[in-house]
Amino acid sequence: MNIDEAARFLLSHDDFEILTHAYPDGDALGSGFGLCLALRQLGKNARVIYTNLPKDFEFLTEGVTEQSFEAGTIVSVDVADEKLLGSNREKYQGRIDLCVDHHRINKVEAPLKYVDPGAAANCEILFELFGRMNVKLTKQIANCLYTGISTDTGCFKYGNTTSKTLRVAADLLDLGIDAPWINKVMFDTKTKLKLKLEQEIYGTIEYYSNDRCAIIAATLDMQKRLGVGDDELEGLASIPRQIEGVLIGITMREKESGVFKVSVRTDRRVNAADFCARFGGGGHAEAAGCTVKGTLDEAKAQLKRAVDGVL
Amino acid sequence: MNIDEAARFLLSHDDFEILTHAYPDGDALGSGFGLCLALRQLGKNARVIYTNLPKDFEFLTEGVTEQSFEAGTIVSVDVADEKLLGSNREKYQGRIDLCVDHHRINKVEAPLKYVDPGAAANCEILFELFGRMNVKLTKQIANCLYTGISTDTGCFKYGNTTSKTLRVAADLLDLGIDAPWINKVMFDTKTKLKLKLEQEIYGTIEYYSNDRCAIIAATLDMQKRLGVGDDELEGLASIPRQIEGVLIGITMREKESGVFKVSVRTDRRVNAADFCARFGGGGHAEAAGCTVKGTLDEAKAQLKRAVDGVL
Repeated sequence: MNIDEAARFLLSHDDFEILTHAYPDGDALGSGFGLCLALRQLGKNARVIYTNLPKDFEFLTEGVTEQSFEAGTIVSVDVADEKLLGSNREKYQGRIDLCVDHHRINKVEAPLKYVDPGAAANCEILFELFGRMNVKLTKQIANCLYTGISTDTGCFKYGNTTSKTLRVAADLLDLGIDAPWINKVMFDTKTKLKLKLEQEIYGTIEYYSNDRCAIIAATLDMQKRLGVGDDELEGLASIPRQIEGVLIGITMREKESGVFKVSVRTDRRVNAADFCARFGGGGHAEAAGCTVKGTLDEAKAQLKRAVDGVL
Repeated sequence: MNIDEAARFLLSHDDFEILTHAYPDGDALGSGFGLCLALRQLGKNARVIYTNLPKDFEFLTEGVTEQSFEAGTIVSVDVADEKLLGSNREKYQGRIDLCVDHHRINKVEAPLKYVDPGAAANCEILFELFGRMNVKLTKQIANCLYTGISTDTGCFKYGNTTSKTLRVAADLLDLGIDAPWINKVMFDTKTKLKLKLEQEIYGTIEYYSNDRCAIIAATLDMQKRLGVGDDELEGLASIPRQIEGVLIGITMREKESGVFKVSVRTDRRVNAADFCARFGGGGHAEAAGCTVKGTLDEAKAQLKRAVDGVL
């Protein structure tokens, strides 16, 4: 379907439940709450379904009060695969009416899909969609969209940023959003604990394949010892990729004993989504994720074998 | 003078020497080489005068061959004060014909000045100026301008970023520049040595004034022990400001025994330029610098007294 058809679908339906993926990021939550506010502005019922809400993203929920209604229409935003719905998967799998997404590898099974892999963020799609729907962009909706766009592009740093992305962001800035504050919270704020964690993580860096791969790991033991949780562990993934000469940066985070959530960030010469697909994961060309099981050493060995396969 | 007068001045003169400030950053060098290429495209002689060229910025000089000519016109770019000319100060002080800058506190004494403090970067001014001069924006000129704009805004992250800044960047992207590569080099590349330095610097963090101030220090001793130079020490300044709750982040770098180059980054509630002015320095509202003399403890004590004065 094209974007006008997606707009017409949203305009002609009601009682929306908006699904985001588990471990939601700025684009998932910005898309969810932005769309929710837009639909409510049009007089419709809408709520966002999410697995958890990291503290830094709470500002996105401003003005989104509880609404009591029977769900009629299910829309997923920024969800590349129903597997990524986490604890909401069982309830919603196979029930999505409309899927709006920007992941090239989108595998959601839904009767209606609008997927634009050229969009840097799902929120960039929503900006255009809201224009077609004659949604008035309030400051709060603009905050949601800006948050999604800035977080998915690393504040306009990554290769997915197009001139259109920048112009959309310019239009959002003109709506009076507090972009410097959002950016500071998203990109330039670290707790003391986070600094301690980074100091420790730097000590775990392991180079592999002639230093073209760097691996860091946050074991459960380390997490417990430092007392760090999701808030601190977010964002570690950018560390190994930054090292000069590294083509594949791998971040291993032990979620439960023997289960590692793995984030892969790559130079453009290596496809991160393909890499993670070997482990049943997925994502973007330069940023993807998967889960690997085993002890730290076993999981690392599996990942190294995969590195050997691509380098 | 207004921007059209600045354009006319450049169009009607020749044999340019373009001055940048000492310890040049992306905006100084992007402005210098961007203007040099623009003037040469118009058939004029031009060269850039700089104190040093960090390795990461070498790509800005592409296509700028040596030209032999007698200097006729001196233009300064991104220079807020002739004091900042470093080793070029003696030769050029009082000789600047045209000063183009974006620092509100500009103190350059020149007969002609075009200062636009609303511009996020000096390169943003040049983008507009080149338009008035009918300069064709080649990819290399666009690379120079983009580098200045992205580095001075922390890749569009800081409060100086306006919607105009984003639209200028969008126009530059449309010229086919390799923004992801530039951004990776500028913001997302660390040598192994830099990582080691950061790990060590994290250990020097000192909190002050109920944790509203954080101070880090790279002594000569540490620099020698780790074998780090200018390349690694650049960018440390963002570390203390990032810590949650910190309003004043201070980075001390011992340049020679008992002489500290101090970088101050502040929350918007504190003016960094005013803070540094107490020590004879200056800069922007949220990012400024100065020099403080004494032992590490003495220099720190002076800085803390100044912190007491503003918090």
